[in-house]
Amino acid sequence: MKSEKIKITVDIYGQQYTIVGSESTSHIRYVANQIDEKMREIQQANRMLDTTNVAVLTAVNIMHENVLLQEQLEVLERKLALLEG
Amino acid sequence: MKSEKIKITVDIYGQQYTIVGSESTSHIRYVANQIDEKMREIQQANRMLDTTNVAVLTAVNIMHENVLLQEQLEVLERKLALLEG
Repeated sequence: MKSEKIKITVDIYGQQYTIVGSESTSHIRYVANQIDEKMREIQQANRMLDTTNVAVLTAVNIMHENVLLQEQLEVLERKLALLEG
Repeated sequence: MKSEKIKITVDIYGQQYTIVGSESTSHIRYVANQIDEKMREIQQANRMLDTTNVAVLTAVNIMHENVLLQEQLEVLERKLALLEG
């Protein structure tokens, strides 16, 4: 099976973005929707922020979650290695 | 032990951001540095993008990784449940 590139236009925080990737359309739409929601949450909590600041702080929040997920993954991998070892 | 709020100023993509959280200073600096690097990577690859677009696409990339990490985590959790069950 050949992995085909998908090009899809999504709306994030009132602006259109063209995303190119090999993921499914539904995955890309889900990711875009999550970003849109998080940007609106951050803007609601800090009404003085401009769009760039909102976007950077959104990225910071998601990266923070990313680091926590990576840590959880390492814990589970160690556990599994012990059980399977 | 009381969890204290930490307030730290970081530099991301040439701009200063004050981040407030209960995480360690090193964690916040690490996260900020990751965002700065990713924004520069995306800007290098798409020189026409303005800073807001760079930040939004950075957030999209990290959220994409998050979804994959969550999927990996679920797989490992199911494996562990089987082994421990």
